[in-house]
Amino acid sequence: MALIASHVIFALQETRRFKVISIDNHHNSHPKSLQRVAQIARDALPPNASEQDKESTVIDAWTCDLRNREQVRNVFEHYGKDGIWGVIHIAAYKAVGESSEIPLTYYENNVGATISLLQIMSEYDCTRIVYSSSATVYGTPPVIPIPETTRMKADSPYGKTKVMDETIIEDVCSAEPTRWSALSLRYFNPAGAHPSGLIGEDPLGRPMNLLPLLSHMAIGLVKDSKLQVFGQDYPTPDGTCVRDYLHVVDLAKGHLLALDALGPDSHVFDTCPTNARFKAYNLGKGHGMSVLEMVDAMRKATGFDYKYEVIGRRHGDVPELVADPTLARKELGFNAPQDLVTMCRDLWNWQTKNPKGYGGPDEVLPAGATPTLHQL
Amino acid sequence: MALIASHVIFALQETRRFKVISIDNHHNSHPKSLQRVAQIARDALPPNASEQDKESTVIDAWTCDLRNREQVRNVFEHYGKDGIWGVIHIAAYKAVGESSEIPLTYYENNVGATISLLQIMSEYDCTRIVYSSSATVYGTPPVIPIPETTRMKADSPYGKTKVMDETIIEDVCSAEPTRWSALSLRYFNPAGAHPSGLIGEDPLGRPMNLLPLLSHMAIGLVKDSKLQVFGQDYPTPDGTCVRDYLHVVDLAKGHLLALDALGPDSHVFDTCPTNARFKAYNLGKGHGMSVLEMVDAMRKATGFDYKYEVIGRRHGDVPELVADPTLARKELGFNAPQDLVTMCRDLWNWQTKNPKGYGGPDEVLPAGATPTLHQL
Repeated sequence: MALIASHVIFALQETRRFKVISIDNHHNSHPKSLQRVAQIARDALPPNASEQDKESTVIDAWTCDLRNREQVRNVFEHYGKDGIWGVIHIAAYKAVGESSEIPLTYYENNVGATISLLQIMSEYDCTRIVYSSSATVYGTPPVIPIPETTRMKADSPYGKTKVMDETIIEDVCSAEPTRWSALSLRYFNPAGAHPSGLIGEDPLGRPMNLLPLLSHMAIGLVKDSKLQVFGQDYPTPDGTCVRDYLHVVDLAKGHLLALDALGPDSHVFDTCPTNARFKAYNLGKGHGMSVLEMVDAMRKATGFDYKYEVIGRRHGDVPELVADPTLARKELGFNAPQDLVTMCRDLWNWQTKNPKGYGGPDEVLPAGATPTLHQL
Repeated sequence: MALIASHVIFALQETRRFKVISIDNHHNSHPKSLQRVAQIARDALPPNASEQDKESTVIDAWTCDLRNREQVRNVFEHYGKDGIWGVIHIAAYKAVGESSEIPLTYYENNVGATISLLQIMSEYDCTRIVYSSSATVYGTPPVIPIPETTRMKADSPYGKTKVMDETIIEDVCSAEPTRWSALSLRYFNPAGAHPSGLIGEDPLGRPMNLLPLLSHMAIGLVKDSKLQVFGQDYPTPDGTCVRDYLHVVDLAKGHLLALDALGPDSHVFDTCPTNARFKAYNLGKGHGMSVLEMVDAMRKATGFDYKYEVIGRRHGDVPELVADPTLARKELGFNAPQDLVTMCRDLWNWQTKNPKGYGGPDEVLPAGATPTLHQL
């Protein structure tokens, strides 16, 4: 489970309303994160917890590769037709730069696997899906803050895989409007970690994102003497790029709201322009923080004396990406109340309690293996 | 081999410059078409043909499903690394209306299979591809005639599969510009048949396109008393929709020009805006014919007294789709000289010589089967 998925599963467990089934090939995640999520849920059980409550803390964790149709079919077969209420599909490669270097790998893993997943869902009459999309679908947006009605025009292959998947899912909902329903959640910049310090981000290799990089610098995992800031000549208050950071725990809760919105009492599809039950929502705070503001906040949280140097702009960077979160607030009841100080504090709490992340290299699923079930 | 592929293979055979390897699951095509193509090529051999010339008429026809990665890999393995010079990828589902009903089947067959094909091509160092795209990528075009610079905005899932494939192929060319090169050919409306009457269109079920439908009405395969014309209130000269029909033999020759343009002496990529060797070309005549003009032309060719009735517009129909063929003419040397009379004559010649098409139901490849080679 990578950062977002582990927090989403935690949020699901916390409600005790769901039986969680996880499918993961552990490419970019550590099996230990899931054990910890199960542990947090069990620790939170009241002494008088019912058997049903106890049962709800058990995660069915399948080691299974989403690109392998037969493996995924085996998992669905285990629960039978109509045995799975809905799917939250968070599995994807997500490094923008890498996606330009190995686009086919991204298209196979993010698009090919999604097509195959949808087909198997259909076979097993599992026709509700919450899809993890991204602010990258907007490319360079013409208007800030960005409403969901903005045309999609991604720049990187990664962003394009998200546009393609949204398109495919919407077409599926159009084709069978009484059968399928789907929500696409366009994440802005998730940050922080669970306040327990038990789960958090453990990037594969050098962190690609600003906050984990700053955290790794402070803990000594990244030994760069200076942070490289890509451009200080953007049309923003301090000249550095502005992004919309939200706490990963807030983001995770958005998925619960999305599941409810796929339920029988929902009205979110009433305003759809066609009869297709598909809708996309921005998940962001609605205001932006610059690179230098983030460095300053992490300095306060960690006490580390960051040095930085401004180098040239990085190809593909957009000056400002800030969500218009109105629709998600109004229709899903979503908000992201936690502030930057909390995000940085929780990130640093995770990092200091887990200076080497979950520890050890990830266990990668051998190709062609039968999916295996661990009940955690 | 469906209509276009059989004519492309014929055009390749005619030059005696190529060894043709065909991969087909015969979903929408009859194995007999390929036997006939091989036969035409052998009949055309001069009495003093060299062994090499004779060998060039032998088609390696693989019964193989492009969606099955292992099957396709087996075919490439047969020829070894660098053993195949390039690929013309014409395999796709293509019924616009059906694609809205079963979009996942279209995305799997047209996009998933293309991703997988490109990966296997890369494994075997086969990095030249001519891709069959379509005028549908333009959706409702803002300018007529349509230049290739028009933004892509397809309306149907079918059209979107073509946009996605072009996007994926272009990204592959961008990622490895010294390795990959690709041309996308955006077909307008192919019509007619080979003048020999040996190969032509044999639609699965009721014809979806106007000309085959008119031909089936004239031969008695379709027994409708009247042709239904979808709308006569479009802003066109006679009020019916206008399309850019070109002879399928001319279209097929465009593929030879495209292969040459992927060769070492080509300059078509010199004008690419980035260093990615990818380019898209319209293949059309550059002028349009209305539905009523087509009916009139088929009346003259067949002698059949078509009746028609005008019913309401059909959802998704665009008033006018006419190519701006300037770029393909200038850079590929492409033109489509054969006129409407010839298209209708050749179609009717095929139909009268083959009143039931190739005859009998198509042989569909059983799922999971090993690919089999027939040398024709």
